[in-house]
Formats: sequence, C-alpha cells, structure tokens
Amino acid sequence: MTEISSDTVESTDITPAIAPTEVRMAEIVFPNHTNHMGTLFGGQALAWMDKAAFLAAARYSRHTVVTARSDQVDFKLPIRQGQMVETIGRVVEVGRSSIRVEVELVAEDLATGERKLCTRGHFVMIALGPDGKPTPVQPLPFAVASA
Amino acid sequence: MTEISSDTVESTDITPAIAPTEVRMAEIVFPNHTNHMGTLFGGQALAWMDKAAFLAAARYSRHTVVTARSDQVDFKLPIRQGQMVETIGRVVEVGRSSIRVEVELVAEDLATGERKLCTRGHFVMIALGPDGKPTPVQPLPFAVASA
Amino acid sequence: MTEISSDTVESTDITPAIAPTEVRMAEIVFPNHTNHMGTLFGGQALAWMDKAAFLAAARYSRHTVVTARSDQVDFKLPIRQGQMVETIGRVVEVGRSSIRVEVELVAEDLATGERKLCTRGHFVMIALGPDGKPTPVQPLPFAVASA
Amino acid sequence: MTEISSDTVESTDITPAIAPTEVRMAEIVFPNHTNHMGTLFGGQALAWMDKAAFLAAARYSRHTVVTARSDQVDFKLPIRQGQMVETIGRVVEVGRSSIRVEVELVAEDLATGERKLCTRGHFVMIALGPDGKPTPVQPLPFAVASA
Amino acid sequence: MTEISSDTVESTDITPAIAPTEVRMAEIVFPNHTNHMGTLFGGQALAWMDKAAFLAAARYSRHTVVTARSDQVDFKLPIRQGQMVETIGRVVEVGRSSIRVEVELVAEDLATGERKLCTRGHFVMIALGPDGKPTPVQPLPFAVASA
Amino acid sequence: MTEISSDTVESTDITPAIAPTEVRMAEIVFPNHTNHMGTLFGGQALAWMDKAAFLAAARYSRHTVVTARSDQVDFKLPIRQGQMVETIGRVVEVGRSSIRVEVELVAEDLATGERKLCTRGHFVMIALGPDGKPTPVQPLPFAVASA
Repeated sequence: MTEISSDTVESTDITPAIAPTEVRMAEIVFPNHTNHMGTLFGGQALAWMDKAAFLAAARYSRHTVVTARSDQVDFKLPIRQGQMVETIGRVVEVGRSSIRVEVELVAEDLATGERKLCTRGHFVMIALGPDGKPTPVQPLPFAVASA
Repeated sequence: MTEISSDTVESTDITPAIAPTEVRMAEIVFPNHTNHMGTLFGGQALAWMDKAAFLAAARYSRHTVVTARSDQVDFKLPIRQGQMVETIGRVVEVGRSSIRVEVELVAEDLATGERKLCTRGHFVMIALGPDGKPTPVQPLPFAVASA
Repeated sequence: MTEISSDTVESTDITPAIAPTEVRMAEIVFPNHTNHMGTLFGGQALAWMDKAAFLAAARYSRHTVVTARSDQVDFKLPIRQGQMVETIGRVVEVGRSSIRVEVELVAEDLATGERKLCTRGHFVMIALGPDGKPTPVQPLPFAVASA
Repeated sequence: MTEISSDTVESTDITPAIAPTEVRMAEIVFPNHTNHMGTLFGGQALAWMDKAAFLAAARYSRHTVVTARSDQVDFKLPIRQGQMVETIGRVVEVGRSSIRVEVELVAEDLATGERKLCTRGHFVMIALGPDGKPTPVQPLPFAVASA
Repeated sequence: MTEISSDTVESTDITPAIAPTEVRMAEIVFPNHTNHMGTLFGGQALAWMDKAAFLAAARYSRHTVVTARSDQVDFKLPIRQGQMVETIGRVVEVGRSSIRVEVELVAEDLATGERKLCTRGHFVMIALGPDGKPTPVQPLPFAVASA
Repeated sequence: MTEISSDTVESTDITPAIAPTEVRMAEIVFPNHTNHMGTLFGGQALAWMDKAAFLAAARYSRHTVVTARSDQVDFKLPIRQGQMVETIGRVVEVGRSSIRVEVELVAEDLATGERKLCTRGHFVMIALGPDGKPTPVQPLPFAVASA
C-alpha cells in the first residue's frame, strides 16, 4: 500500500478514460432535494441535467455555451432520498453553433445496487465566442455520430 | 411612522391578494447562478420554474404533487447577474389527477425597471394521495379556465 | 392545450400585475431551515424579510439599497417544515434617501390552505448612488402613502 | 513537528476556553452574501446573529430554543466581501424561560487586521421542553449578570 | 433529430459503463469555492474527495460507510474559478470492513481542454451494518486488486 | 435591560478576547451534512477544518493563504445531526512562508453539554504575496511557540 507520489504522475494518467463528448456527475439525493413523499423534485433533476449538458457541450466545443432549449422531459420513475444519481450527458448532434446533448438520469440504490433510468432528455446548447455571439463548432466525429 | 402591532392584525389581512391558482417568486441572480458570460444557467431557470409549478399545483390541489413532465422550454433572452427574476406559475388546465401549470420567467433590471419575458414553459404535475398514488383534484373554476 | 409561442408575447404581458412598491417571494421551509422542534429558525425568517425589503426598495428607487435598520420583530407563531412561506414587502414610507418597507411573513399550510400571519416587521433601507453615498429617491405616490 | 496522536488527548483538553454563556462564529463574506456595492446584505448579518443567539441560549439552557423577538438592529458600517466576520453571542439576561442574548458582529479585514464593530443587537430566545412549551431555565450566575 | 422515447429503453442501457469500483463527479469551480486569488479552497477539494470516496466505497460494499481516515494530501497545483473539476474515486484495497479509496482531483480548463492532476489522496472508509457497527465486505476482485 | 447604543462603543470593545493565532467557528450539524446513519460526513469535517486553518493562517500572516498540505486525519468519534461543532484552529509552527495550523473538531451535545474531541488535524498553509508567490511571514511569538 505504498503511497504513490503525485510528482511521478505521468501525463497519460490524466487522459480521460471516457470520451470528451461525455460527462458523468454523481450526486446524492439530500433532504433539501425532496418533496414530502421523500422523492426528488423535478426541478433539481432538470438543473442537474442542464449542468451535465453544459459541461458536455463546453468540453466538446471548448467555448462557453448557453442553453437554447430543453426538450420535453418525462419523469418516469421517482428518485428517493439517499439514492445516488448519476447524470450522464453525451453530445449526440452538432449544427453550425449548436450542440445537442442527450442527458440520462440514472438512480442507483446504494444498498442494493439496483440502477434505473429515471428520465432522459435533450438540451440544445449554443456555443458563444468571446463577443457573446454564436460561434462555429467542429463537426461531430463519425464514430460518435453514427453510434 | 407608528409601529402597527401584529396583535391587532385582522384575519382578513392574510387573505391572498392573488388568486390561489397563482404563485410568484422573486429571486436575485447571484454569481453562482451564472456562466462565464455572467448569464443565468438554464438549469437554474428550470429549477425555479419547476418550483413555481410545484407550489402553484400544491396550493391548487392541496396535495403533494410530483412533476410528470416539463414541456419544451425555449430560452429567448439571457438573464444577467444582479437582475431580479420573477417566476410566475399559474394553473391553466386540470385533468383527473394532473394539473398543468404555465410558468413565466420575467427578468427585471433593478436599475432601469425594464422587464422582459425571458421564457415561458409548461409543467404537468400529478397530485398524490397519502398512499403516494394519483388522487383526483377539483375541476378548474370557469373564470380561470376561460381566461 | 395549444402551446403559446413566446414569439407572440405582447409587451403588455409583462406589465407587473402587482404594484411596483410590492414584492412577493414564495419559499418552502426545508429541513436545513429548522431547529429540533421542526420549526423555522428566526434568522432564516429575518433573512427572507430583509431580502423582500431589499427588492421592494430597490424596485421602488431603482438604486442599490442597503439595510440601515431592522425594527423590533416579534415572532408570534412558529412556522413548520414543509409549509410555504410567502414573504411580502411593501414600501410604506419614503424620506429623502430612506425607504421604509413593511414586511409580512405569512405561512401557508399546503395541505389545508390555512394561512397565518407569523410576523410583521419594518426595515429602513437607504438608496445609494454610483458613488456609494445616499442618493435622493422620489416621494411616495399619494395613493400608496394614504393606503 | 511531531504528530500528536489524538489517542493521548486528556479530557481537560476539551474544556471550553470560553465561558458557556458565549459563542463565537467566524465566517468569510462570499460573493453570494453581497449586493452590487460588494457589501454584506443585512439579512445575512441578521441570520448569523440569530444563529449565534440560538447557540448561546441553547448552550446556556441545554434546551431547544426559539427566537421570540429580535430588537432593533442598526447597521452602522458596511462589511465588505472577503472580510472575516466574527459573530459573538453572549447571554446577558435570563427570565423564567427567556434568555436575552447580546450579539455583536465584528468585521475583520484579513489583510490589515483592522477590526470594527459593525452592529450589535439583542435577541430574546425562549427555552422549550420536550412538549414544545416554555420551560424554566437556571438563573444567570452572579459573575456574568453583573459583568 | 428524432426524439428517442424513453419507453423503449432496454435494461442494458443502464449497465454502468465504468466499473462498480469507480465513481466520477464533474463539478464547476464557483466564486464561493475560491479565495481572493481566485483559486479553489483546499477544504472544498477535500470535501469533494471524501464524497467520491464515500460513493465509491458505498457502491463497492453496498453498505453505509463512514470515513475513518484521510491520508496526507498534498496540493500541487491551484485550481481556478470556472474550471471543471473531475473527482475520481477508485477502490484500491479492501480489508475486513475497511475500504481504501484512491481519489484523484483533475482540473480541466474548459477553454483549452488542458487537464492537470492537481492532487491525489487516499481515504479509508469503514462499512457499517444496520446496527452501526463495522460489517465485513467482499474481497476485491483479482483484476482490480492487481491493476 | 437598557439598550446600549453602539455609538458609545469604545474601540477596546473589539479587541479580540482570544489570541490572533486562534480562530473558533461554531456550526450546527444539519441533515445535508450527514449520511444515512445520521452522522457527519468526513468531507464536511475536513472542509470546516481547512476553513479554520485558512482563517487562522490568514489572520496570523495578514496575507492570502493557500492549503499546501493536510496531514493524516483520523476520525475517532462520529458527530451526530443536531450537535454543535466547534472547529478551533491554532497556529503552532511557522516557517519562512509556511504556517502550520492545528485544528480540533469538538462536538458538543446541546442537550447535555457533553463535549468530545472528535478529531485533530494539521494543515500547512502558504502565505502568498500580491504576485501570487510565497511571501515571508513573521516568526511565531515565543509564548505561543513554547506553549
């Protein structure tokens, strides 16, 4: 159990293990996130989903991005206090300045390990240049676009 | 500038000045709510909108409510740090157990008073009984339904 | 249930339905706001009241305002976790640079709809110019002053 | 620079160095605590003052306490972002079930060490028994009462 | 850009793409997380690292876990406001009831994509049974232990 | 119970009653700070400890400080929701630009007054000049160094 000094860390160590078109955010559902039934507020779920969309689109485009639209989001299953929520954002489509991100919200019961997809939504983000105006982004790599 | 004792408050004082189908929440946009352009994150806007929908539907139905769906939301105008945001939720349609709430997000520049409707969205909330299952709600009064 | 496009929104839609001398903030009492009896901390109530006073005075004067004084506040009734709190600030008196705001804190039980005035306080706010010094504000309109 | 094992900690180590009638809370003023002039919101100051009053009274009485009244608070000096705020609560008077706490808010400039008393207020707290009703508290020790 | 209905989601969709011994949490560094140089507080970094250790150990053991020890943590590189922080926790060693988690904190500049390992630490977590006492956990699979 | 006007406050009133090498922060453990056993997350404890180290070192050096290292921290005793936590930071050793702060975390049961030292840790902070580079700090006074 030798301590590995971070001085010796190779640059490859920090190469992301996941593709740059994806971001994962783990959270715990706290009492302040829930209603009287002990289930997660929809608004908190939407905030996490938008944050994942923001990060996925900003990492993809290397620009500041703003949310232009959130598509219809259906909440299929309630998420309970104490559960882990993993919010996963993936860039799925790219226009001239727009980036469409698919976001999944998966609840995981920490005691049983049961995972359930609770909702999936899409957010359209716009990349902005330093002047605050839409700026072009690179096309989606073939491998991702056709996945 | 005489102090009015709250001992003398009449019960009528607390009759809501606004209809029970509406709720208003004023907020200030703080640094933690904004991206690098100094404009409000879409996810924060969605969280405020869902909270207004929750309160409007809970007040209307007198039940705990959960969000079943948020419809497409288009963000037309950025909202800047330091602005006041007024989130206004109004019950606009009622089904057996579902309550549709229209939510407007209005930004007000505190220095100029200029108000702009930044987005409008709809949330479908479901009223739950003590058993956590959908429970019927009263029909919308004619005056509101036809407004 | 046709979607109303926000493109067609008329400017009159965003005229405030309430007077510019008033602000309303709805909140939910969360576990972090309460003591061991499950009732709202007085300090949280005071923070919400000052925020309503800030917004009411800033909207009235169209200046940044600072709190110069909070008058004695008596807490008559406890507010319970899960209740809605509506904090209502109203400009009631105006001096050269000072704005006196009456703030009411009304608790509403979401299950029964029962509303109770829990406390009422007054805050004196000072309008500041860009130099950070007190700046004159317009006199209160007759209709409000005599209300 | 030998590590002191906490295994060897004597019980006397944790005897409070300050009297049980006093509590001190150090805080940093963050961007979310300030208005557009970069000075602390009055409501945040009031929330910290009430929290210090709560802790001082709860420690003194060993009961849950609720705020019955905050006396007039005058804000003499603005507190700036980045400053340290020390909120000091001291029990100064005790009735049958009520505890009066004097609270001082001292701002300290971390760069210069300059300390300024920014405001001083008094809060009346009521001790509650397990039934949620006012319960008697011990009289104030002579040494403190006459200080 | 057809909407994929979440009704058609296969259960395999929610199989975690990453091993159950790992957890990833993306965050944005906000103004409230930083000192006057605009760099992340060490305490915030430690809090995120412990949260990742908690989630990695709870997912691994399927028990509630508590932190028994954090090993020495060296902060090599400052993390700036606006950067993305990815906190990655990995179970690296397992005792009878203890789980050792290695946590890396990687800062990613959203504008340039540059990623830097800012610190790496180890946390020892203890799995607790329903009685709040240490409870055995399964040995680490060979593949992970020898990685 | 006469109101003491803060106009008459003498400057000596704000002389710190505790040495400038020490800082005390009282906090309450809230539901969001705890795991499913109702005990404080280690990461929250570490964040409070680092904050106390930051304040103690910044007050001692009158410079902005950054955390260079947190030494091993052992969590001996769980801290429960509703307890008061007093975090006490004391400067114990000073190098050229580095300041070593010992931090104790004491839990106090508000109902019984029982105080327990829950953990003790050491943080090494570095003083930074306006250029963001390490800057010399004054040696520790003899009385403190030999205590």
